[in-house]
Amino acid sequence: MATGKINVSVENIFPLIKKFLYSDHEIFLRELISNATDATLKLKHLTSIGEASVEYGNPVIEVKADKDKQTLHIIDQGIGMTKEEVEKYINEVAFSGAEEFLEKYKDSAKDSGIIGHFGLGFYSAFMVANKVEIITKSYKDEPAAHWICEGTTDFSLEEADKTERGTEIILHINDDEKEFLEDNRISELLTKYNKFMPIPIKFGTKEKELPKAEDAPEDEEAKKVTVDNIINNPEPAWTKQPTDLEEEDYKNFYRELYPMQFEEPLFHIHLNVDYPFNLTGILYFPKLSNDMAMQKDKIQLYQNQVFVTDNVEGIVPEFLTMLKGVIDSPDIPLNVSRSYLQADGAVKKISSYITRKVADKLKSLFNNNREDFEKKWDDIKVVIEYGMLTEDKFFEKAQKFTLYPTVDGEYFTYEELEEKIKDNQTDKDGKMVILYASNKDEQHSYISAAKEKGYQVLLLDTPIVPHLIQKLESSKENISFVRVDSDHVDNLIKKDEDKTSKLSEEEQEKLKADFEKVVPKEKYTVQLEAMDSNAAPLIITQPEFMRRMKEMQQTGGGGMFGMGNMPEMYNLVVNTNNDLISSLVGKEEAEQERIIKQSLDLARLSQNLLKGEELTNFVKRSFEMIK
Amino acid sequence: MATGKINVSVENIFPLIKKFLYSDHEIFLRELISNATDATLKLKHLTSIGEASVEYGNPVIEVKADKDKQTLHIIDQGIGMTKEEVEKYINEVAFSGAEEFLEKYKDSAKDSGIIGHFGLGFYSAFMVANKVEIITKSYKDEPAAHWICEGTTDFSLEEADKTERGTEIILHINDDEKEFLEDNRISELLTKYNKFMPIPIKFGTKEKELPKAEDAPEDEEAKKVTVDNIINNPEPAWTKQPTDLEEEDYKNFYRELYPMQFEEPLFHIHLNVDYPFNLTGILYFPKLSNDMAMQKDKIQLYQNQVFVTDNVEGIVPEFLTMLKGVIDSPDIPLNVSRSYLQADGAVKKISSYITRKVADKLKSLFNNNREDFEKKWDDIKVVIEYGMLTEDKFFEKAQKFTLYPTVDGEYFTYEELEEKIKDNQTDKDGKMVILYASNKDEQHSYISAAKEKGYQVLLLDTPIVPHLIQKLESSKENISFVRVDSDHVDNLIKKDEDKTSKLSEEEQEKLKADFEKVVPKEKYTVQLEAMDSNAAPLIITQPEFMRRMKEMQQTGGGGMFGMGNMPEMYNLVVNTNNDLISSLVGKEEAEQERIIKQSLDLARLSQNLLKGEELTNFVKRSFEMIK
Repeated sequence: MATGKINVSVENIFPLIKKFLYSDHEIFLRELISNATDATLKLKHLTSIGEASVEYGNPVIEVKADKDKQTLHIIDQGIGMTKEEVEKYINEVAFSGAEEFLEKYKDSAKDSGIIGHFGLGFYSAFMVANKVEIITKSYKDEPAAHWICEGTTDFSLEEADKTERGTEIILHINDDEKEFLEDNRISELLTKYNKFMPIPIKFGTKEKELPKAEDAPEDEEAKKVTVDNIINNPEPAWTKQPTDLEEEDYKNFYRELYPMQFEEPLFHIHLNVDYPFNLTGILYFPKLSNDMAMQKDKIQLYQNQVFVTDNVEGIVPEFLTMLKGVIDSPDIPLNVSRSYLQADGAVKKISSYITRKVADKLKSLFNNNREDFEKKWDDIKVVIEYGMLTEDKFFEKAQKFTLYPTVDGEYFTYEELEEKIKDNQTDKDGKMVILYASNKDEQHSYISAAKEKGYQVLLLDTPIVPHLIQKLESSKENISFVRVDSDHVDNLIKKDEDKTSKLSEEEQEKLKADFEKVVPKEKYTVQLEAMDSNAAPLIITQPEFMRRMKEMQQTGGGGMFGMGNMPEMYNLVVNTNNDLISSLVGKEEAEQERIIKQSLDLARLSQNLLKGEELTNFVKRSFEMIK
Repeated sequence: MATGKINVSVENIFPLIKKFLYSDHEIFLRELISNATDATLKLKHLTSIGEASVEYGNPVIEVKADKDKQTLHIIDQGIGMTKEEVEKYINEVAFSGAEEFLEKYKDSAKDSGIIGHFGLGFYSAFMVANKVEIITKSYKDEPAAHWICEGTTDFSLEEADKTERGTEIILHINDDEKEFLEDNRISELLTKYNKFMPIPIKFGTKEKELPKAEDAPEDEEAKKVTVDNIINNPEPAWTKQPTDLEEEDYKNFYRELYPMQFEEPLFHIHLNVDYPFNLTGILYFPKLSNDMAMQKDKIQLYQNQVFVTDNVEGIVPEFLTMLKGVIDSPDIPLNVSRSYLQADGAVKKISSYITRKVADKLKSLFNNNREDFEKKWDDIKVVIEYGMLTEDKFFEKAQKFTLYPTVDGEYFTYEELEEKIKDNQTDKDGKMVILYASNKDEQHSYISAAKEKGYQVLLLDTPIVPHLIQKLESSKENISFVRVDSDHVDNLIKKDEDKTSKLSEEEQEKLKADFEKVVPKEKYTVQLEAMDSNAAPLIITQPEFMRRMKEMQQTGGGGMFGMGNMPEMYNLVVNTNNDLISSLVGKEEAEQERIIKQSLDLARLSQNLLKGEELTNFVKRSFEMIK
């Protein structure tokens, strides 16, 4: 039996890196700036623990493009490399310099924010450059080194005369990647990936107005000086302690994150945890627009202040992907599939930590300033309702702050609502009936009728309400939600009340038959009721169960299979105690038919069912009647 | 100056592969089955050109899991490897066996469908296995080889006693990847990635009923036999020639692709090109449901019958991502970013080829069976309209088959429409006015009025219509689209007609002032017109330009900035020749006000503007009037 060593075929490493390692060429710049940042932070660390006897100073990382020479330069003032270190860290691909460094200075390096795997990131330069140079001088007292490689496995290495500490990477950009020499493109990339990295990054210069001297004449022009154009904010708000930040700082950071966003966020949640995982960040509740799909993917994911992605699916619970803001965690595995993410233990913990923090924040907002919370309710309810529907833990916590608004703009918690309605809105079987409307305008006449009975009517108008009330009914005992137009007002909450009809049994039977002659029976079921004489003569209703199942099907999932395609069926409630109705008895047939038809049209108007030609004819007829 | 060779650090190659190469563990199975397929196709090729003197037979690839031993086996009957070949192809990572093979048999191999890069795909096995074995016997007369590696760079290699030709890969699955030993999970993966691969894949067995003998008694139970469970269709429809397929074959393939889909596709487009790029596939026009977002990502992308992704963004023009079906092309670069895809020359050509084929198909459907095309129009118009808006080439081609339906269900091409309306619908300035409605019900009274004038009214009801007609107006000369409710019927198409009012100038001025006293002026501009005496007394209109700009803003993009937030403003057209209006002159103020109010309510009803409490009051008042 033979044994041996697997041999990685070196010739194939460059195509491999180009083809597989990074799908997106543009990230080479992020990788090189990450390396420059690492090199600078390493120096900071070594000086702070007295291992390097040089001045740390105020180092910056500079990015420069030279279009004529077709070169891009990334220059840092960090730790630098000796010739031996170049041999070790650059020529041995996949040898992670940062890992060895971390191993050596394990405990002291822990909090210094050192990022990643040196070797591999560097080689991403070959995605856009056919030739790469490194000119580097170590903080140690040794000569500088100059490394050149033209994208094959051959390299050259010699001494250089660079005297300042640090590393300069020179990329000779490929002809078909020249976009990376354009100012606009470089700016775009720096803004996308490096906007919040911890070392200042200089790209070009800009003019700045000097403040005028106090005694300067009014019309004197302000003096301008040319200063470095620093593209990043090295200390973004989320890296600070919540106690060091004012409300205004959070708003400013929001504007920094979303410069094109005019609306202010409703409130923020500062995330800050380091055990059992590391996570910082700030989430904002934005005002939601109508287009829910547009809302998603607004949370940005960072790792140690380096932008990674704006797709946080799997990391943030789905109902919170409508929020905005930043999450920064070194503990989230990158480059893995969503299904893997969802199974990952650390990620699960992160997701439930975020859920808990959001629930806590909502509760404290509610407790501290209920009036303000009520004002924000319409803007945040979709997120909360969706969370209640999809996350059981959130559902429990949300009981304390979820509001149930009435059509008159009052806001109750569930407890308060129960207290308010349990006497008047409990039916003869002991079930508490919660009335609601989905549209104040369209259901106006039904709402009015319910309010006249002293009932509270909630306004629940989001598309997921049918699903949510289904869940609430099954989690609470002996309650039911009923929409105001699902029956006539006396039947919404059935009580033991004697209802006597003005009409005899015989008259009623006759009347019902008369109605059924005129009214299309495939759409309406005629239902005679002895209601208050002041109530409307005719009312069209649609039973709660059927309507809700249909709605649940339409909004995706739930409901009963096939219900979505059932035809619309209504009840036509005839109030036998209304004068108009009782006067029909004994009227001649043509007149009776005319009155029933006109009344039916009016009832349909109230339920938004009179449309098209029928509406046109109704309007025409009504104009005639005015004359 | 020193030169040297870059050295790839072998110890780091496994973590590298695990971490970066494949984001998704599950694809290891796809890679191993691709290798097994390659090995089989290579043998087929060698036997066909007489280079291998063995029987090709009917080879299958078998997948077996052994839960007790925690192993997964992939067994092929392909070309196999000698010990030397294992050394060469397996131990030298990233050495592409397929490439060398292709080089050697370049011309004859061209059409034999050999896939990919052997070495790397194989190593993906280590994402899920801590130990991998290869037992392989070459088609050449040499002893079998047995290779074992435990995920380090050490391996062992010895002779084995395997006698059948082919390769068996044995994965010793990691404890935390045991899901890949479950029948359901394996089936799921095979169905997802390998459903249409060219060599039969066996996974387990199934029972099959034998046909009964002709003379068998009625009540005899059917005999069952156990047969191999072949999970794939090695010859999917898209690999065949269109001439070899019937309509029914295309429908069957659609059901094969989407087993959960009950609706049949409307029609298909067979793609088949091999120069200047290789592409086969079948696209289907499905019936579109209301939820447009749900429709996307239904086209599956394959490379040589291996499933790659169902995200074809960047490859298929956006307006066609609502279609379903399959695209198979070896020329689409994988693992690259969308922005890269969109810039890639080959991909651009593919995208415009697909657009052209779709346009050609639509044109031939229109030419061959117009009646049927008209029936399908409502289901396909969104795609066509969106394509016209976003792809100029498609816009041009679509002129030949785009239909303009009228509210009465007639369908005109643009040319036919022009012919039909140019006499009656050209205004006094020579501009042809195309009238349209967006909703037959809501705009019924306006449609009726236009039809009475002999005008054709189109029904254009998709959300992108405002954008599309904007484009049509600018691409054709001297036409304009006007919605029927944007002015009263005499003004929709302005002609040189004398209109005389029953009322004197003085009476008109007085009447206008009377109306303005009653009608809220922040919503309505009163506009007196001398119309036909039979036309409605009051009509509410909304000018085309303003409404269209608002709609364009609401559906995202276009329109004029800020228009989306303008308040709704209407014109209240008062027909001074209508009896009801003329009778107002000289009426006492209270009665005048009552009539104006009731008339305004009726006009608002016709324009769907009477809602909520106002509607409830109107209905109540009207019930009173019946009595």
